[in-house]
Amino acid sequence: MPILVHKYGGTSMGSVERILSNARRIERDRDSNYQVAVVVSAMAGETNRLIDLADQIDPRGSARERDMLASAGEQVSIALMAMALHSIGIDAVSFTATQAGIRTDRFHQRAKILSIDSERLHDVLDSGGVPVVAGFQGITDTMEVTTLGRGASDTTAAAIAASLEAERCDIYTDVDGVYAADPRIVPGAKRLERVSYDEMLELAGAGSKVLQTRSVLFAKKYHVPLQVLSSFEDKPGTLISEEAPVMEDVVVTGIASDRSESRVTLRGIPDQPGIAADIFEALAAEGISVDMIIQSRGHDNLANISYTVGKTDLSDAVNVTEGLVKTLKAREMGVDEKIAKVSVVGVGMKSSGGVAARVFRTLADNGINIHMISTSEIRISTVIDEDHTEPAVRALAKEFDLIEEAAEETVAAS
Amino acid sequence: MPILVHKYGGTSMGSVERILSNARRIERDRDSNYQVAVVVSAMAGETNRLIDLADQIDPRGSARERDMLASAGEQVSIALMAMALHSIGIDAVSFTATQAGIRTDRFHQRAKILSIDSERLHDVLDSGGVPVVAGFQGITDTMEVTTLGRGASDTTAAAIAASLEAERCDIYTDVDGVYAADPRIVPGAKRLERVSYDEMLELAGAGSKVLQTRSVLFAKKYHVPLQVLSSFEDKPGTLISEEAPVMEDVVVTGIASDRSESRVTLRGIPDQPGIAADIFEALAAEGISVDMIIQSRGHDNLANISYTVGKTDLSDAVNVTEGLVKTLKAREMGVDEKIAKVSVVGVGMKSSGGVAARVFRTLADNGINIHMISTSEIRISTVIDEDHTEPAVRALAKEFDLIEEAAEETVAAS
Repeated sequence: MPILVHKYGGTSMGSVERILSNARRIERDRDSNYQVAVVVSAMAGETNRLIDLADQIDPRGSARERDMLASAGEQVSIALMAMALHSIGIDAVSFTATQAGIRTDRFHQRAKILSIDSERLHDVLDSGGVPVVAGFQGITDTMEVTTLGRGASDTTAAAIAASLEAERCDIYTDVDGVYAADPRIVPGAKRLERVSYDEMLELAGAGSKVLQTRSVLFAKKYHVPLQVLSSFEDKPGTLISEEAPVMEDVVVTGIASDRSESRVTLRGIPDQPGIAADIFEALAAEGISVDMIIQSRGHDNLANISYTVGKTDLSDAVNVTEGLVKTLKAREMGVDEKIAKVSVVGVGMKSSGGVAARVFRTLADNGINIHMISTSEIRISTVIDEDHTEPAVRALAKEFDLIEEAAEETVAAS
Repeated sequence: MPILVHKYGGTSMGSVERILSNARRIERDRDSNYQVAVVVSAMAGETNRLIDLADQIDPRGSARERDMLASAGEQVSIALMAMALHSIGIDAVSFTATQAGIRTDRFHQRAKILSIDSERLHDVLDSGGVPVVAGFQGITDTMEVTTLGRGASDTTAAAIAASLEAERCDIYTDVDGVYAADPRIVPGAKRLERVSYDEMLELAGAGSKVLQTRSVLFAKKYHVPLQVLSSFEDKPGTLISEEAPVMEDVVVTGIASDRSESRVTLRGIPDQPGIAADIFEALAAEGISVDMIIQSRGHDNLANISYTVGKTDLSDAVNVTEGLVKTLKAREMGVDEKIAKVSVVGVGMKSSGGVAARVFRTLADNGINIHMISTSEIRISTVIDEDHTEPAVRALAKEFDLIEEAAEETVAAS
């Protein structure tokens, strides 16, 4: 029988009623002749409650002990989920990461999965049961408890699906799929039936929060189709899978915006080889990840370098960069926190020219100035003033036909 | 350096402030040149919260999943306790039962400890750190999570103390020691400085709730002195250890009362060999534990048999016994739920005659009728009407000099 993995996030595990409703959904898929394995997150609010206790005791907190603490949340969830299945007559067995053999490296709070020992999970499936696996957590070769980072239960689910060679991994959450644009910004934004792994990766990297980049990478590497769907309604969601021929008809699949970055600029640097290397080596040495980088030369023949960096890393980045002003004989350093990155993503761009020009024209027509541009084969990102985020997303959604027609009329009429 | 084990119960782990206060107490014992290992319970209320969730989902609940669920509470506690020690500069490492190698048999919710792999605990102690071990939980040889039964963190602590060959196991709780009688019944009851293992076992079996019988058995078997003391005040508690010569000066060490049992009586049974065997084999076959048993013969030459049984087992016991009324040709069966067992305990009884007579006389002088009597070498238990519990305990405490003199005067004056 084909295997499905169901993954239930914190909101979907948020109450006894939700957990029992998940059990009935699992039963339905089993009635349709699937074997089902389940991965669960901690109940909504639980991880925050535990972290809050830790912060009260020791805000610096050892990463090892924080992992020990936080992983208790998923242990509660697997037991309750297994009990809910028992209550409707389905055999189920809960598995901590230790028991499921989810081996990781030794980096606490951001561990990477090295291997999964799926033998015991297969035993349960083969005897007609449902294995219920704790997301988010792992175990090292010396039995230390690790966690994979916030929100990484999706990654566990993709990894379990890969190791079980599942037909699909269904990620149940509180939204009913991936939208072409954030519906809070663009009312009536189209819900996507299908997205390719690469598009989803670009959308996640560009600020869409529906799925973690890591889980999509995992799914892509092992060719596991992911489906994002709501545990609150009974309808299909968005399928994330290999690129399908039909996708090329659409030029732009989705638009993402991201206000979590700031821009740092060094202006008036005497141009010489290796300026960029000096700056980005210094930042990398401090463990600071940079997103977009632009180097340009002014008419005075002096170079300007701008980069964007997550706001959480900004003060560290500014310290490093300030130290370089003298070394590089730069005229000045500037910081702009009020920026947003707006990105347009679509595999259709590969075969369809002129998308960049349409993006820039649309923004210009709406009086929106572009500070930085970066592109990949299937993505065009622009950095603009933060205030312009919503008008930009709306204008681009309209330009690339990402709004349901009925909704568009409603907007026009209102 | 000698090793101390500190055990903190749920109330002592009940808040961030309490946890930090425990850390400072551990620091003080380390400053007095002890190595300290710690065993903790779940935060007060946590286990009940988890069990309540389980009951909402599946009141019958699989024992395996209930153990998985409940053991999460101790995992939270070990991490927070380790963090609290870190916050005052003490190296500490938390250990789940899996990591500490607390191997148990496979009986979920009432597992027995088979062995402890104390090597990793010793490693932490030898490097100057504090191992913090989860109480209550264990692990089977197939990596199944077990629990030892409610309140069994004391047993974990005694077992860890035994395996580390600790000098003493300090059980920190919300009372400041073991009292000669329940202070809520006998104001001014004496706090005991010392009690022997055997006396503590008799007191626990007779209804004193300060320590679990199992933990005392463990401590006795491995010659680990236990100390019961308060985590809310800084003063010595009650030491439970081998019998000391000085103890014999005192005839009665303590009085315990227990209202958790009921009495079942079969009356008018034609006397023949094997009546008692028939009854108690039938009860044992249903897993029902009986406490006191009395067989007597009336002047009509018919036998009467009474036994006491925990109220939780009463309805099962009644079913079994009703089935025997016909077989044994008994005249009738009676049940009395309104009884109490009042017990007087003391190693001094071994060398001092007449204690039983003083007990019976004291009760008689107070107009209290005795239904059943059972004795051990160091205990005399009587079953009386439940309404008489408090007068009986008070009268016996006075008779055997178990009230502080100052308090006695106050009571007399009020």
